[in-house]
Amino acid sequence: MDGNAIVFTNGKLQDNAAKTTHGLIRGSARYKVVGVIDPVHVGKDAGELLDGVHRNMPIFSSVSDFLDKSEEKADYFIIGIANAGGKLDPNWMPEIEASLQAGMSIVNGMHEFLSEKAEVASLAESHNASLIDVRKPKARGDQKFWSAEIYEVTCPIIPVIGTDCAVGKRTTARFLMEALAEKGVKAPMVYTGQTGWMQGNDHGFVFDSTLNDFVSGELEHAIVSCYREVKPDMILVEGQSALRNPSGPCGSEMLISGNASGVILVHPEGRTYYKGWDFTGKKIHSIESEIELIRMYGVETLGIALNTKLVNLEEAKAAQARYKESLGIPVALPVEEGVEELLTPLMALLG
Amino acid sequence: MDGNAIVFTNGKLQDNAAKTTHGLIRGSARYKVVGVIDPVHVGKDAGELLDGVHRNMPIFSSVSDFLDKSEEKADYFIIGIANAGGKLDPNWMPEIEASLQAGMSIVNGMHEFLSEKAEVASLAESHNASLIDVRKPKARGDQKFWSAEIYEVTCPIIPVIGTDCAVGKRTTARFLMEALAEKGVKAPMVYTGQTGWMQGNDHGFVFDSTLNDFVSGELEHAIVSCYREVKPDMILVEGQSALRNPSGPCGSEMLISGNASGVILVHPEGRTYYKGWDFTGKKIHSIESEIELIRMYGVETLGIALNTKLVNLEEAKAAQARYKESLGIPVALPVEEGVEELLTPLMALLG
Repeated sequence: MDGNAIVFTNGKLQDNAAKTTHGLIRGSARYKVVGVIDPVHVGKDAGELLDGVHRNMPIFSSVSDFLDKSEEKADYFIIGIANAGGKLDPNWMPEIEASLQAGMSIVNGMHEFLSEKAEVASLAESHNASLIDVRKPKARGDQKFWSAEIYEVTCPIIPVIGTDCAVGKRTTARFLMEALAEKGVKAPMVYTGQTGWMQGNDHGFVFDSTLNDFVSGELEHAIVSCYREVKPDMILVEGQSALRNPSGPCGSEMLISGNASGVILVHPEGRTYYKGWDFTGKKIHSIESEIELIRMYGVETLGIALNTKLVNLEEAKAAQARYKESLGIPVALPVEEGVEELLTPLMALLG
Repeated sequence: MDGNAIVFTNGKLQDNAAKTTHGLIRGSARYKVVGVIDPVHVGKDAGELLDGVHRNMPIFSSVSDFLDKSEEKADYFIIGIANAGGKLDPNWMPEIEASLQAGMSIVNGMHEFLSEKAEVASLAESHNASLIDVRKPKARGDQKFWSAEIYEVTCPIIPVIGTDCAVGKRTTARFLMEALAEKGVKAPMVYTGQTGWMQGNDHGFVFDSTLNDFVSGELEHAIVSCYREVKPDMILVEGQSALRNPSGPCGSEMLISGNASGVILVHPEGRTYYKGWDFTGKKIHSIESEIELIRMYGVETLGIALNTKLVNLEEAKAAQARYKESLGIPVALPVEEGVEELLTPLMALLG
């Protein structure tokens, strides 16, 4: 555990833009979340707001409100919302500065880096605080090429991929990790995004801020390091985007360079178009078609997890039953029922 | 035309490692190649050595040999060989320094940058020479995200992709560009590698040295810019790697984010394993399987180009006939017969 943190969502705690925060509320081994800064939801508990579970994470209107009222101290201020383009919003700066002045270090997952802003860097230095730019690419010489070492990994490697972005791949992987742990199965998650790092996963890399030539090698290196250092029973891999997302297809690296033993596929029931691209008319492909594509990469889909944000419980259950029947594989509703359904095919891989 | 250049291959002119040089010998609108530096092949003509066509490109043993004997002057020294990992070989430095001392600028396509080496940078400065690190990533703020603007392009977009890397995708695209030009069809090639830039193509980006998040956007931006500025009849796109190459799968961005109208698929006849990965036992997929995968991305394969380096003419002709029969699409032997065969389906797209 690195320390206590407050997470900044600036009025957007319930938006998809705050999915980093949602992940941190659900659980982080790196930071203990002691508050959320969000003027719209002041006075509520962030856990309750997310999924009805009270987690003792009060919401404050501002950093100064937190400093005044909280009994907890915070070591970190985490930017918990994303912006289109990964840019820092100038409106965030007063809260970032207030945190630095209170001696907090800043955790920033944007593509734009605080450490490159002279004024912010100087403010941080004068308060002995750090600027942690999670997406800052590794130094060139530290990046790995793919080497085929992946074939030395003898435990199952299971990417959790999706038919679209923002469907809950990381959350599903985390649920699987926890459910497997309860069965005594050590199945760490290799992270591939900044939130996964913030949640304290030990092995991984930030996929989207890696130079293309090194993506497969960094992925392999993360999986192989996890295998050698943790000696796991199974390795889960956080997926990114979707194989046919027009704005940035992704996934074949996980299937091929990551030598996947099988995948869990997350699908947003009721979503028609690729998220954010409704106006293009580009439809998300059916689960059946996605399974077929994954099979072309030599990998079988072991189970489905349904994101049910757009449907009610009855519709979710009906979809679950329908997919089970037509696909012949387990279909889970992670938020409503957990991921127990998916453990059977995963445990079967352990022999 | 930027100026005259000598190309450095250090004994490896006939190796695949010198494929940048092979491309430059075949033609560049940016540099006039006035010599090749290769101690193993001194005294020969580089064009003749490549494909039997004399191109008045004499081979010298060293930069000093070139300076002594050539009647031409050179403005540029191009590193024309690649190294595993894209590192600069210390053995190359004496020739690089000799070129700088003669006032030549250095064109470097490696992942390691000359401009970051203090001694080289100072030597360049004192001789008023430039260090052109082609793979140096763009400044963060200059990189584009995908925006769906690609759908405004109304001319056909044709990626030339392969079933493996190092099969002649760029060369095939170049042959197509030239053959189409002869028919009065303006079909520029959007480059995606450093050699494509060196050859003087106006639009493109270096795929493998782009941060993953911006790959689809930079590709789109290159195609859209080409469309707006050149008003072409068709746009060819240089492919990279292969959809299922384990060391770095690539191609779905070209198919989906690049909104491909169809593809030309290049296949290395007689090659069994993915290049460089024989020891893994990972076999290149059949053309049939690759066409099926490409179709899963919503794109049809319009024709095949066979790389015949590993087979004799008779075998090449037999394979050509066999694929034509089984696939029902044109199959070209670019080196032996040109790409005329492939023009029919391409011209048909022009309506």
